[in-house]
Amino acid sequence: MSVRSRGRDGSGRRPASPSRGSRTFTLGQVAAAVDGRVLGDPDLELSGVAALDRAGPSELSWVADARRLRDARRSRAGALLAASAEEAAGKPAVLVPSPLLALAAWLERAAARPRPRPGVARGARVDRTARLGRGVSVAAGATVAARARVGARSVLSAGVFVGEEAEVGEDCLLHPNSVVLDRCRVGARSVLHSGAVIGSDGFGYVWDGERHRKIPQVGIVRLEEEVEIGACSAIDRATLGETVIGRGTKIDNLVQVGHNVVVGEHSILCGQAGIAGSARLGRRVTLAGQVGVGDHATIGEGAVVSGQAGILTGAAVAPGALVSGMPAAPHRDFLKRSAIVARLPELLRRLEGLERRVAAMEKGGKPWKSESPKS
Amino acid sequence: MSVRSRGRDGSGRRPASPSRGSRTFTLGQVAAAVDGRVLGDPDLELSGVAALDRAGPSELSWVADARRLRDARRSRAGALLAASAEEAAGKPAVLVPSPLLALAAWLERAAARPRPRPGVARGARVDRTARLGRGVSVAAGATVAARARVGARSVLSAGVFVGEEAEVGEDCLLHPNSVVLDRCRVGARSVLHSGAVIGSDGFGYVWDGERHRKIPQVGIVRLEEEVEIGACSAIDRATLGETVIGRGTKIDNLVQVGHNVVVGEHSILCGQAGIAGSARLGRRVTLAGQVGVGDHATIGEGAVVSGQAGILTGAAVAPGALVSGMPAAPHRDFLKRSAIVARLPELLRRLEGLERRVAAMEKGGKPWKSESPKS
Amino acid sequence: MSVRSRGRDGSGRRPASPSRGSRTFTLGQVAAAVDGRVLGDPDLELSGVAALDRAGPSELSWVADARRLRDARRSRAGALLAASAEEAAGKPAVLVPSPLLALAAWLERAAARPRPRPGVARGARVDRTARLGRGVSVAAGATVAARARVGARSVLSAGVFVGEEAEVGEDCLLHPNSVVLDRCRVGARSVLHSGAVIGSDGFGYVWDGERHRKIPQVGIVRLEEEVEIGACSAIDRATLGETVIGRGTKIDNLVQVGHNVVVGEHSILCGQAGIAGSARLGRRVTLAGQVGVGDHATIGEGAVVSGQAGILTGAAVAPGALVSGMPAAPHRDFLKRSAIVARLPELLRRLEGLERRVAAMEKGGKPWKSESPKS
Repeated sequence: MSVRSRGRDGSGRRPASPSRGSRTFTLGQVAAAVDGRVLGDPDLELSGVAALDRAGPSELSWVADARRLRDARRSRAGALLAASAEEAAGKPAVLVPSPLLALAAWLERAAARPRPRPGVARGARVDRTARLGRGVSVAAGATVAARARVGARSVLSAGVFVGEEAEVGEDCLLHPNSVVLDRCRVGARSVLHSGAVIGSDGFGYVWDGERHRKIPQVGIVRLEEEVEIGACSAIDRATLGETVIGRGTKIDNLVQVGHNVVVGEHSILCGQAGIAGSARLGRRVTLAGQVGVGDHATIGEGAVVSGQAGILTGAAVAPGALVSGMPAAPHRDFLKRSAIVARLPELLRRLEGLERRVAAMEKGGKPWKSESPKS
Repeated sequence: MSVRSRGRDGSGRRPASPSRGSRTFTLGQVAAAVDGRVLGDPDLELSGVAALDRAGPSELSWVADARRLRDARRSRAGALLAASAEEAAGKPAVLVPSPLLALAAWLERAAARPRPRPGVARGARVDRTARLGRGVSVAAGATVAARARVGARSVLSAGVFVGEEAEVGEDCLLHPNSVVLDRCRVGARSVLHSGAVIGSDGFGYVWDGERHRKIPQVGIVRLEEEVEIGACSAIDRATLGETVIGRGTKIDNLVQVGHNVVVGEHSILCGQAGIAGSARLGRRVTLAGQVGVGDHATIGEGAVVSGQAGILTGAAVAPGALVSGMPAAPHRDFLKRSAIVARLPELLRRLEGLERRVAAMEKGGKPWKSESPKS
Repeated sequence: MSVRSRGRDGSGRRPASPSRGSRTFTLGQVAAAVDGRVLGDPDLELSGVAALDRAGPSELSWVADARRLRDARRSRAGALLAASAEEAAGKPAVLVPSPLLALAAWLERAAARPRPRPGVARGARVDRTARLGRGVSVAAGATVAARARVGARSVLSAGVFVGEEAEVGEDCLLHPNSVVLDRCRVGARSVLHSGAVIGSDGFGYVWDGERHRKIPQVGIVRLEEEVEIGACSAIDRATLGETVIGRGTKIDNLVQVGHNVVVGEHSILCGQAGIAGSARLGRRVTLAGQVGVGDHATIGEGAVVSGQAGILTGAAVAPGALVSGMPAAPHRDFLKRSAIVARLPELLRRLEGLERRVAAMEKGGKPWKSESPKS
């Protein structure tokens, strides 16, 4: 079952989108597809999928975890994907260990988009020295330059550019206007969203007394397998060697990754995060939105950096840490500090009050009554 | 009067740009165009428009409001758009209720760019099942996919992609290399700047024990009417349902809008702002540059979020509030805190001084004279 | 010696990349190319270039400055670019005043990419009124609109758009899918990376009581000579007049520059920095990553703004200053404040302790022993 699974007839007919309810399905079909157990009538007919607060009586929804039980009870959904009879809240359901995984599986099946017809469209520009695997689809307006290679079944949409000697693995999906520059490598089953740029020059100059002289950026970018790069994100090529995005790592929109950065496997980089040159991220790191990572910083396996936090140049974040703020600190400390910063006007008044009271005592007089620490 | 208004001859001749002074006009012509009253000689000839500090004796300028009166007096401008004879500062003028609105109206008229010739250029790729309204212009190198619809008089520039079943309304302007992905909707009179991406996948995964499994993003983006999306901004499609940008909302460059976000009407999102999934913004909200809004946050009608501020996940900003900082707080509080944070080194010295004085008193001795609270 | 220097035969054969070691060279050849002095055997054969910590016995590396001496000693590199015999750490070397400049020079020579064949490729769209200089290369899928001008030897890659009456100088390199909109000017020897947008509309509206009415943006962008603009960066055109990027200024990826901004010569704007409308930056200013500059702010010559710092609307940064934080303050002050903010929980305890001790004294009693200022 795959996002691009579809019959071979290439007819272009689109199966019903589960969000539009134009084709019905039964609870039993869902259970079979997600390997779950039906609670209630397996022949119950449904016509779409929607979130708990939006689903109507003919729609399937899901209870992500026990905290959503209350929402599940209130929901008007006709049936639920749930982890237990209790979380099904009295409704017809398909019971599965992970409702979110079951949702993903059902949507993959029900919402599969038609795969473009294999072949090189008229109006595509494929250099005669490029090599295309079996079943590759190259749309009109896409470019594959000299000596580039594209693996079997990959899809290159309009406006895509694959540069000289670049390599795109099997089963990749390159959305319109995404770019893979010369010699860069995209691993199998990866996805590039529109406007993503793989292999722009690293930002390296040296002042020669009169101008910034460019240090040629002659390295490459290597995306391992199952990497996803968001819209308008840019991954710079290394000065020498490789910038690497590890297997299974997912990068959101408008993210900047500098030259020579190494990101470990299965990491998550959220929107507008930025990583300066030569930083190293371990496996399963999470950067929340708008995080900044300074050059040569290191972030240990499993660490999480909160939104807008800043990791200074050369700093190290320990494996498993949760850090926040600029400069980043352990999240608990950040919370404590932030709470006290919010009270600073009060604390200043208390400090001033103490000063008056102490001065009064020093003079031998009584402190002012009004200076008690209330505020 | 419209930015694209022009005769039908399609000759390609460009009217003079008001900023380049290649065609003259009279003060009376300005007054007629903006519905204002002439102060001085209506036959005064002018040859361009420029800001107060740059305008020369043959140029028109404007006095945005009374605070600019001093600049108006110093200006070498030949004539002014002004709200009153006083604000005209003794110069020839056109009096109007809002000089900025009058400026907009005059520039629309005087600087109208020629509309591209209607029709599908040779080298454009329009699927035979797509439907184009009357007077649509599709440039060479633009793509309109199967079953897409484009409303009357809309302009699709080179490198534009309109995906399968997408809908673009009437009188839209899609600049070069902007992208509307499958099934997304762009309302009438909307503008997409170069590199804008409408309908990239939302960033949704679930860990299956071995890898991040993608939750298919099968919803869409819906831009209502008169929306403008800046260069290299990305609006993600919903997981299910719709991501919505309300009528008349204007979005600047490099802005990220996550899946399932709803932005109200007539809002303003400045450059590099980012909104995480499922956040909701009311009508006429303003996000200044580089603001971050966490997932599931809500921002009430008319609220203003200052530059670089951060709204935490799930937080609520009250209607009409002005908030700043990370985490965001009422702007007044932010100013007070920031001022005290700047004084922290001094306050630390005062605290230490107090400690010494109190310790001295506790011992029965005299406090050090040097520890008075000056710093 | 230039990045694009190459023989005229246009054969498309690529010289060996220094990072891939597919062609050998001698230490003497390096010395001749970078005008340095050989220390050791000039006939020593090498096969690539790599950083100190990665270079093997057949590779050349470099010692950027004396602080890298220790790394140089540990390195397995076969030879070094170094500033002195001492910094060569006992290895064969080429001695030069600036090892980094020598590195740049050597990479320019050894890694020169083949220049695309001059001429207009079939599938390029060049308006018959456009003017192309001698040796210009326009790839299939690039567009040059009416009355645009492109200087000698410039390279326009696939998906590039050069708008009406735009001007691109000599020896420019426009990477795939970069955009120069109508009437904008790109100076000689400039580089636009993929997805860069020059001349998107400035973000200017005026509320007319019912909607945001667009103020037409009829000015242009002017990039002076030797400017580099990163991937997915957007430079907005002026409302009237010009947005200017000074000669030799280098701009990284995902940077936003608002309308009417003026950036001085030889400045450096790092990734995801944003500059709001009408701000002015002097010569040789550095903005680190994710910096935000408010509208109408001014930044003096040679000033440096640290990562994620925020310069408020209308604020002024003095020439030569180093500022950090939001709102930005002198870097030293920022460090002091940040250190004290990190100690706020402790300082709060000390304040509370003092209050108890003072209250005890005021009552005539003894202070609690436990309230000594340790924490």
